[in-house]
Amino acid sequence: MPHDRLRRLTEYAVSDRAALDALLDEQWFGVLSTVSDGEPWAVPMLHARDGDRILLHGSTGAGALRHVAGGAPAVFSVTAMDALAVAPTTFESSVNYRSATVRGRLEPLPREEQEAALELFSERVLPGRTVEVRPSSRKELAASLAMALAITDGGWLMKAAGGWPATPEEADAEPDVWSGLVPVRSVLDPPLAAPWAAGLPVPPSVRRLVEGS
Amino acid sequence: MPHDRLRRLTEYAVSDRAALDALLDEQWFGVLSTVSDGEPWAVPMLHARDGDRILLHGSTGAGALRHVAGGAPAVFSVTAMDALAVAPTTFESSVNYRSATVRGRLEPLPREEQEAALELFSERVLPGRTVEVRPSSRKELAASLAMALAITDGGWLMKAAGGWPATPEEADAEPDVWSGLVPVRSVLDPPLAAPWAAGLPVPPSVRRLVEGS
Repeated sequence: MPHDRLRRLTEYAVSDRAALDALLDEQWFGVLSTVSDGEPWAVPMLHARDGDRILLHGSTGAGALRHVAGGAPAVFSVTAMDALAVAPTTFESSVNYRSATVRGRLEPLPREEQEAALELFSERVLPGRTVEVRPSSRKELAASLAMALAITDGGWLMKAAGGWPATPEEADAEPDVWSGLVPVRSVLDPPLAAPWAAGLPVPPSVRRLVEGS
Repeated sequence: MPHDRLRRLTEYAVSDRAALDALLDEQWFGVLSTVSDGEPWAVPMLHARDGDRILLHGSTGAGALRHVAGGAPAVFSVTAMDALAVAPTTFESSVNYRSATVRGRLEPLPREEQEAALELFSERVLPGRTVEVRPSSRKELAASLAMALAITDGGWLMKAAGGWPATPEEADAEPDVWSGLVPVRSVLDPPLAAPWAAGLPVPPSVRRLVEGS
């Protein structure tokens, strides 16, 4: 993996499927890569894991997405940066991270599964929200296209780096050079009500999300 | 863009180069996508912007990266999620985000530029660190390969969504359904000294990074 040059000793492949699921579940965005007319094509997208598949969604009109949805080979990538790993040399300095690529063919879901998939997608992004709002209308559903990328054995690759950076001895550095980690976290700030909702209570779904983060 | 289905009215293309630079500079990781034997290939990578180019680096031995470095077409994607946008319906709910794709050919830098590029890369990740540690050795430099992806006019695309979610009227929802934003931020926690550096003062580079975040 190119990005781990600086930490060859502590970077490792992850084969634990639970670790892949945890990474997919904690990240909202990933990047969908495919090939279009021989050229690389990539687009950052929201995603939601549903068991052994990754759900994506787009508008029924999006051209490039329809190409991918039509069965072209695709790779979906997610990354989490956990810490800056400051070693006693720049060469050994790096980051603690987790990243995964899931390879397969993105398939549009059958018409009869579309509504449930879109609901599940919404629930993954903000659990509990779907029961606080009206159901999607027929017109809204018709404007949406849910697709799935299967997570198959041998179809995914996860890499991670963790732990302390190289010691001064390993890095061939003076022993009095500080080294350590700077942890990186994603946090949710208190919710901001839209102007027209200023007098309304924050709904349970949003409260739970922010308090649980 | 596929991921903005839910906010068609507020999602927009960004043509301001300064906004692209800001996004690239604030994100540590991106995804490099290319085509290898007709198949999509993607790998999350650290990056550093140097004016009108994006620097990447890898080991001199990484096969797929050498392929890309050899001039194959590539796309580098970065994303920032700024807020969850909770609308009065699931259909209108979405996220406030910024994303960009930079398209071009990744070129290995000439030998005489390698050292300066690797130093600049380190400085972008942790400003001020290179003067706190010893210079890289000849052997360390030989094990590294710095590459550049030029940011050219017409070669990049940036999208963003911002502001409040749809009003109840726009969403065809009851007026008493809460809506608003849940801001998302990346934060740096206080540095953790490696066991062998426990008695040493935190260096200025790390102090500035954490205090400035």
